[in-house]
Amino acid sequence: MSVLIVGSIGLDDIKTQLAEHKNLLGGSASYGAVSAANFAPVNLVGIVGEDFPKEHIDLFCNRGIDLKGLQIVPGETFRWSGEYMWDMNTRETLSIALNVFEHFTPTLPKEYHDTAFVLLANIAPDLQHHVLNQVTQPRFVIADTMDLWINIAKESLTKLVARVDMLILNDGEARQFTGETSLIKAGKAIRAMGPRYVAIKKGEHGCLLFGPEAKFFSCPAYPLEDIHDPTGAGDSFAGGLAGYLAANAASGEVTFELLKKAVVYGSVLASYNVEAFSLERLKTVDTAQIESRYQLFRQIAQFEAI
Amino acid sequence: MSVLIVGSIGLDDIKTQLAEHKNLLGGSASYGAVSAANFAPVNLVGIVGEDFPKEHIDLFCNRGIDLKGLQIVPGETFRWSGEYMWDMNTRETLSIALNVFEHFTPTLPKEYHDTAFVLLANIAPDLQHHVLNQVTQPRFVIADTMDLWINIAKESLTKLVARVDMLILNDGEARQFTGETSLIKAGKAIRAMGPRYVAIKKGEHGCLLFGPEAKFFSCPAYPLEDIHDPTGAGDSFAGGLAGYLAANAASGEVTFELLKKAVVYGSVLASYNVEAFSLERLKTVDTAQIESRYQLFRQIAQFEAI
Repeated sequence: MSVLIVGSIGLDDIKTQLAEHKNLLGGSASYGAVSAANFAPVNLVGIVGEDFPKEHIDLFCNRGIDLKGLQIVPGETFRWSGEYMWDMNTRETLSIALNVFEHFTPTLPKEYHDTAFVLLANIAPDLQHHVLNQVTQPRFVIADTMDLWINIAKESLTKLVARVDMLILNDGEARQFTGETSLIKAGKAIRAMGPRYVAIKKGEHGCLLFGPEAKFFSCPAYPLEDIHDPTGAGDSFAGGLAGYLAANAASGEVTFELLKKAVVYGSVLASYNVEAFSLERLKTVDTAQIESRYQLFRQIAQFEAI
Repeated sequence: MSVLIVGSIGLDDIKTQLAEHKNLLGGSASYGAVSAANFAPVNLVGIVGEDFPKEHIDLFCNRGIDLKGLQIVPGETFRWSGEYMWDMNTRETLSIALNVFEHFTPTLPKEYHDTAFVLLANIAPDLQHHVLNQVTQPRFVIADTMDLWINIAKESLTKLVARVDMLILNDGEARQFTGETSLIKAGKAIRAMGPRYVAIKKGEHGCLLFGPEAKFFSCPAYPLEDIHDPTGAGDSFAGGLAGYLAANAASGEVTFELLKKAVVYGSVLASYNVEAFSLERLKTVDTAQIESRYQLFRQIAQFEAI
């Protein structure tokens, strides 16, 4: 089955303590779509300006991503600039220019209306609602979000959370959203707001997955010594997870056991993503490499012979 | 096989944001020995004053711990007083009174000299050396430590680390000891100092195990909503781990696969320990409860059917 992905597509300037790169392909939908496309057909919904480099369009095409939902309009593409501190966990936004994103209305092509799996990648909750309103019979809807929307659009986000099957957010955001210090309490509190599943990303500490009947899974992080660029790690995680589900959910049914594996595949994509700036690593990763790292996750996480 | 455990035995006053208790049984060897005794015979080496309550001696006896190595001397027992902040991760030491501990020389009873497994629980590195010097043919030696010794006895600790098979320490201590921000780099740097295995405890984020040939295991934390008293969690972890190894290492041989399970059993004991103040929970935990939680760890960590 296919997965519909909506989110931001932009051009990033990124500075770490070791390197600085400009005009990189970025945005939640870019990372999400390229990751998901390793597993399932992807319908991409987003907006870029006429300045958007053709090589990025080619990258999407080369990964088999359907671009009927990509609007290319007069004006400039969304731009973000950020700097990472030494620990690679803390980052500072240096500048944002919404540009064409400011008046984006994500109207879906007719062919996308019946997409079974939906990933509402990080974007304003109102836009996530708008997309969801157009999907006629979604089987499984995943939403990602960030601290910005908890700060300035909490009401819309709370309504969205009640409409989706799964919410993905990071540890700080889960604490901020619920007011709970304990991530275990935070995960349960978010589930009580509606979604059947909640994934809390913890960066170098992996990811926690909460499900019904107190079901719980703790996914380790891949033990990387060096992280070159953490940008898009969460988006790659969400994309890999959504793509794996769309490809493997028998007649659309998502079980907790399947979600566990999807979380691991999402973590595999995130781990590859941070090995290079922008989508430089993601654009060449292949099925054999993904499978090989999945097997490494098994060795890292499992303590009884299989 | 038996496990020899040396460390502190003391009386603690502990304050959390919700409760306060005084004159509690504490000390690294107390938590370590009671945890290890669930799996294997334990030889306890430590010192207490004549004020040490008989009920604590009874607790050790009830758990089948051998006390020939426990010195009961004139004077007062070691005392520690601490307070935990809201997050239960940060704690402040309010007072320490070494008392009889000040002139402790851990001389082993002759019967202990050939103990195969040794846990040098958290105590001054010089004392850990002194105990190790008396063990004739140790098969597997584990050392635990803390930030204090990295600060004031780094040279002795570094020499000790080169003599042991496994070092256990927490994330902050691993960073402090090695100067590495990345825990992956820190674990490898400590292995380069001598020990074949290194375990880095991460509290609510579980534990990382490093072994030869880049072997790596990430153990999740048990998802507790409420922690009543974190005191002794690390000591219970080390004790459970050492006891499980002593009971299950065929002819004393420790493999990485066995160590993975030992880390999980250590985590099981630590998770029970923090459910109550002092050793209140540990003193009643039984084999069926330990096995039951071990099975829960399997469900939490494993993402493929076994």
